[in-house]
Order: sequence, then structure tokens, then C-alpha cells
Amino acid sequence: MSTAEMVKEQARQAKKASRQLAKAETTQKNEALQVMSRLVRENAARIADANEEDCREAREKGIGQNLLNRLSLDRPKIEQRAAALDAIAALPDPVGDTDYCIRRPSGLEVKRMRVPLGLVAAVFEARPHVVVNMGGLCLKSGNASIMRGGSEALRTIRALGELWEKALQESGLPSALVQVVATAEREAVNTLITLDEYVDVLVPRGGKGLITLVQEKATVPIIKHFEGLNHVYIDEDAPREIAVRVTHNSKVFMPEVCNALENLLVHEKAAPSHLPSVAEALQADGVRLKGCPRTREILPGIEEATEEDWQTEYLDLVLAVKIVASLQEAIDFINRYSSHHTDVIVSDNYSSVKQFSREVDSGVVLANASTMFNDGGELGMGAEVGISTDKLHARGPVGLRDLTSYKYVVEGSGQIM
Amino acid sequence: MSTAEMVKEQARQAKKASRQLAKAETTQKNEALQVMSRLVRENAARIADANEEDCREAREKGIGQNLLNRLSLDRPKIEQRAAALDAIAALPDPVGDTDYCIRRPSGLEVKRMRVPLGLVAAVFEARPHVVVNMGGLCLKSGNASIMRGGSEALRTIRALGELWEKALQESGLPSALVQVVATAEREAVNTLITLDEYVDVLVPRGGKGLITLVQEKATVPIIKHFEGLNHVYIDEDAPREIAVRVTHNSKVFMPEVCNALENLLVHEKAAPSHLPSVAEALQADGVRLKGCPRTREILPGIEEATEEDWQTEYLDLVLAVKIVASLQEAIDFINRYSSHHTDVIVSDNYSSVKQFSREVDSGVVLANASTMFNDGGELGMGAEVGISTDKLHARGPVGLRDLTSYKYVVEGSGQIM
Repeated sequence: MSTAEMVKEQARQAKKASRQLAKAETTQKNEALQVMSRLVRENAARIADANEEDCREAREKGIGQNLLNRLSLDRPKIEQRAAALDAIAALPDPVGDTDYCIRRPSGLEVKRMRVPLGLVAAVFEARPHVVVNMGGLCLKSGNASIMRGGSEALRTIRALGELWEKALQESGLPSALVQVVATAEREAVNTLITLDEYVDVLVPRGGKGLITLVQEKATVPIIKHFEGLNHVYIDEDAPREIAVRVTHNSKVFMPEVCNALENLLVHEKAAPSHLPSVAEALQADGVRLKGCPRTREILPGIEEATEEDWQTEYLDLVLAVKIVASLQEAIDFINRYSSHHTDVIVSDNYSSVKQFSREVDSGVVLANASTMFNDGGELGMGAEVGISTDKLHARGPVGLRDLTSYKYVVEGSGQIM
Repeated sequence: MSTAEMVKEQARQAKKASRQLAKAETTQKNEALQVMSRLVRENAARIADANEEDCREAREKGIGQNLLNRLSLDRPKIEQRAAALDAIAALPDPVGDTDYCIRRPSGLEVKRMRVPLGLVAAVFEARPHVVVNMGGLCLKSGNASIMRGGSEALRTIRALGELWEKALQESGLPSALVQVVATAEREAVNTLITLDEYVDVLVPRGGKGLITLVQEKATVPIIKHFEGLNHVYIDEDAPREIAVRVTHNSKVFMPEVCNALENLLVHEKAAPSHLPSVAEALQADGVRLKGCPRTREILPGIEEATEEDWQTEYLDLVLAVKIVASLQEAIDFINRYSSHHTDVIVSDNYSSVKQFSREVDSGVVLANASTMFNDGGELGMGAEVGISTDKLHARGPVGLRDLTSYKYVVEGSGQIM
């Protein structure tokens, strides 16, 4: 069987199984999630071993530290994933939920009811934890899933795929519901992203190469996960201690992820007092600063920031800094340069926070908190399949609700027009 | 200025104006809708004259009755459109609405808040009323709109576009907010559907030629409006009088529209008693029936239905009829042949209605009511920009809420990870 035929057959079986899942009770889905959570914990050593092997090979091939961080699934991260499954099990089931329920003058009773999408596909690089999170979120939302990881994560995702199979069998659900495409063949991606017959939506997770490939070649609908060109704006009325803490955490905590900080804006009135402390904290952790001319008057030692810097997602310990004359200038700058992913204001002024929240056109807008909180778990969705930079269907962290569609159910008694 | 440049300039101005609209108060948007409603009523004679001219020319060119019905905007239809604007003004404003609002253990306060999409584009054939409905729905939902009608409706849409300009000026909003592209040049469509720079979503309304063109060439996101291959299923326990009434109305009321009935399924136990009455009512209004072999045993005079008939959206007084052995057979047939648009069960059995509603995978599933009720106005949304056969973003009638996106607004007090 060719790679294309194999992927197609996996998708066909998954789609078929999804019809059975759509009718399953919440308790049965939760049971499968809890069994999987237990199996992940019981097999933590095995998963960690497989992952160490993947990481060792990847290091030998010389992949960057950034990708290596995303590839790593060590014992603490494995425990986090098991906990995420428990959290997903504890969340309300979106399927069958109604968010519009009215009686019309015609006497018709109208309900808008959440239904599963069907089959959700993912293609990703590194990030083997996607197999746990996405499989779990899809299962809870009544969807089958088919996931294709990169060749660098093969051992880890195979181990996780086997656990899903066991978990589904133990809980009496079709084991075809969670499919892991565990092959290094590039053909698997090309097949999956054009399988309109079976795939209802595709979630790509990876670097620009993968995203560009998917954008150009995919014929199935996509929930896009583009780059995170994120901003922190330190307002005139920003408490200095919070400005330092939030900026430092946004940049340094996990610089390789899409919700990390890339451009720092500082109000001209806060710059003299705040910028030296902010710079000190960042530089102490090895952050390389680049600045606009006014920034360099306050921080004379740093490099000059160019137009290209404002447009670059470094995913690394580099930060471009600009001084702005007003809140409005900050908002306009962000609406121009941001990838509309995660933007933050640090301010103790009520009106400034409200205006920033209203006018910054991004999926997640935060006040006085780290960009790191743009995360499905942190925002209360249990876990996420990614962070959408689309405006249609899903925006921000993509959780359970975003993996459903809806239908209108209309009950009458013989009404005609 | 070339057609492409003209369209691009209109879109640029509309997008710019949309930023101002996003901040407008609900009262100001409602005022513009009410002014437009008044202007439509005051200028009804002028609109009807322009439309009669369009219709006369279309008849001379020999366009079909189907398209002619959709092109027509006579005095009663104009009054309906004015009333729809009033209804839209009376509806709650979706912008700023929150449908998720929690406090996290971290102390963060998280809200999911509805925001406008930006610029909504439409390309349509005939259907000049789209300029009123869609302009109104976009305005209320905080979006600018740019609409390109077919050459057959030029006079009507120009007249309506002029009224929008006046209405916006009178109510102090930028007149660029509602743009009518009033040119017969085909280039206008090609430009609009690839204007990624300005257009946030595109709504195509038209025949298969237009839809195929849009599918193949559009690069902007689309809310699809495919065909309505709709079913009525007359259950074993269907009251005969309701079966006759609902089937007749679904087929005959407006056979040219996408929510009209195309395939009739009848339970074998109901067929002998119900089918003759249903056929009599349909044939009295000129409906040509085609049937499966078992149908033709009961209605010997009718033509044979072929596999192709089950897959054909006639949009005309033709109906394919099939006898099924069970509710499950009806559900399976519908899930296979339906375009997932509008499907109906006629039954007085509680379990049958519940099973049909749950298992039929269509945007609007009705019990004991005509397919004609799949309509934004009838389902309580005031009016619609169309009926989506997509599963992502919007499904069924596309109303105010579906013309918005959302953002997460997160308020903290210095939280870091």
C-alpha cells in the first residue's frame, strides 16, 4: 500500500468512526480520556525514553535549540499532558449545547445546537504533545482526529498513538477514532491536506515552511496558526515593577513559542524611569536589545532597530524596543505590525486599558499580564489545539467549542408560508 | 481608472471607514438603518421603476423565469426590505457582546467579546435586494460592505446604492461604509474575490457558474452558499393533512429558491394512504413528479426517477419521490444525497422526530414545518446575507452574529507564568 493509500484508508476509517462518536454519551468520552490519562502516567518512562531517542537523533542532525525545545517531552511535560486530559474530561461537553433558543411568532421553536465537525486533521513539526492534546480535545468534542507529525518525532508519536488505541479499546469506543500517521514520508502531508472527501478541518502547527506549504496546497478548510508578532506596551501610567516583570516573563519564559514577546513599546513619559530597569532584567537573562533612536538615548549601548526588526518574529532572546509619544501611537503601531496574536498593555490607568482592549485588533489582548497567558489551559479551555490568527470560525486559543459546528433544530406543528 | 483600480479604491475606502464604524455606538448604527428604511419607502416608486427597466431588458435578453423571479423587486418586496431594515435596527447589537466570562485561579479575568470582521464583500447575480439586506446586516454588525451585482440588476442596485449614501450621510456615518460596485465589467468580480488586502470575508450568491468561479479563483475567505438539495420525509406516523400541506408549500411556494424541496421520501406504511393526496395537491399546481419503482406502483402515471434525479437541484416544479422502508433508511439517504441545507421530517412520533433532528447532518433540520422557514427572518435573525452550507464559522442562515469575530480580553494585575 502506498503512503497516500495508507493515509486515505486511515482517514476513511476515522471518518466512519466519527459517526459513532457523534452519538456517544459524554460519560463514555470522559471515560476514554481518563483511561488515556492513566495510561500516559503509567507509561511515562516509555514515552520519555522514546522522546529522548528522538531528541538525541535530532541533536545529531543538528536541528536548532528552538525546535529541540518543542520536540522535548520529558517527565514533567508528560505529567502536564496527563493533567490536561483530566482537565478536558472535567470540562462541559460542547456537543448538544444550545446557545440560541427562541419561539417565533409563527409558533416555531428554534434551537441552535452544537454538533461535532467530523474529522479533524493536524500536520505538525516537533511538538509530539499535540497527539495527546489534540486527540483529547477532538474526542471530547465528538470528532475523530488524524495527526501527522514530523519525522523528528516519530518514536514519541508512535508511542502515544499506541496508548490512544489501548485507551479507546478499554473504554469501548472505536480505536480508529484517533489516528497517528507515523511515517517520515513527505507524501503523507500532501495527501492529508487535500483529502476533502474525509477531512472537515485541518490544523497546521509548525514553522513557516510547513505553513506556506499548507497555505499553497491545502484544499481542505484550515484553521490558521501563523506567527506571533506580539507586543507589550508600557503606558505612561505603568507601575514600574509590573512593567519589568511582565516584559521579562513575556520575553524570557519560553522565547521559542508563538506567544512570546517580540516588540516592546514604551510611552515617552515612562521611558526614562522604566526602561533602564526593564533592560537590566532582560539583559541579565541574555536578551539582546535593539532600539529606536530615542531608546538608544536612554540605553546607549544597544544596537539600532531597523524597519525589518519590527516585522520579525525572532522566537529567540532578541527584542526590538520603541518609544512612542502616546497610547494612540502605540495602538496604531500594534494594529500595523502585530500579527494579531497576543498584545499587552501595562498600565494603571482605567481609560487607557479600556481603549487599548477595545481598539487593538488582536485575538488576545491582555492588561497587566504576561503574553504567556495566551494559552487554552490558562484561559480556561483545558487545553488547545493551537492559537488561531484567523478571524473566521476560531480566533485565539482553539479549544473544545471551536472544534464544533452547529445546526438549527426547528420544531413546528404544520407551519407553512 | 481601470475597473480593477476602481474596485480596489472602493474597497480601500470602505475598509478605512470600517475602523470608524467599529467604534460607533449602537444608537448611531440604528439611526442609519432607520433612515435607510424611510428612504427605501419614500423612494419605492423610483426603485420599482428602475427594477422594471432591469426586468424588461432581462426578458428581452431571454433570461429564465427562475432568474427573473430573483431579479424582481416590486412594491410589496420593497416594503418587505424596508421592514427588514426596521427589524435589523430592533435586534440586539452583537458587537461588544460577551459569551464567555470567567475568573481564573491565576486571578485573570477573561472575556470573549464579539468584534466586527472589518470589510464584507458580496458578489451576486440578480437578487438586488441583497444590497439592502446585506448592507443593513453589515452596518449593524459594525462591518463595511462592498457588493457587486450582476449586469442584469444594474439600475436597481445603483438606485439602492444612492439611497445608502444618503442614509449614511444623514446619520453622520462615513458614506464609504456601503459600497455598490455598479459596473457590468466582469473584471470587477475577479478583482473583488482576490482583494486579500482589504476583504475579510466574501459571500457569493448566485448560480453554479458564479459559485464555481469563486471557488476556483477566490483567495479571500468565503462563506459558501451552495445548492439546496433538500428533503421532506413523510414518516410512518405523519398526519396526512400536515404531510400534504408541508410538502406542497416546500415545493410550490417559491420553487426557484435554495430552500425549496427537491426530493420527497415517504415511509412505506404511509405511502398508500398519503402519497395520492400529496401527489394530487402538487399536480394541481403543475408539479411534474418522478418516482422510484414502488412510488410508481401507487402513482402509475408518473415518470421514473433515476439516480441523477436524487442528485439534481431542479429549482423548478419537478419533484423526485422515493419510498423508504424505515426512518433509518430515510436518514441515511438524506445524509448521502442532501446538500446539508434544509431537511424536514413530518411525523407525530416523538422518538422519530428526535432521532431525525439528531442524526440528519444538515444546517437546518425541521419537524412538521415547511423548508421555506430556513430563512434568517423566519428564524429570528431579522434578515440574512444568505444560507451557509459550510460547517466552519457560519452554518444555516447567516445573520448578524455570523458577521462578527471575537477577541479575548484578559485583565490582570501583574500575573506572570
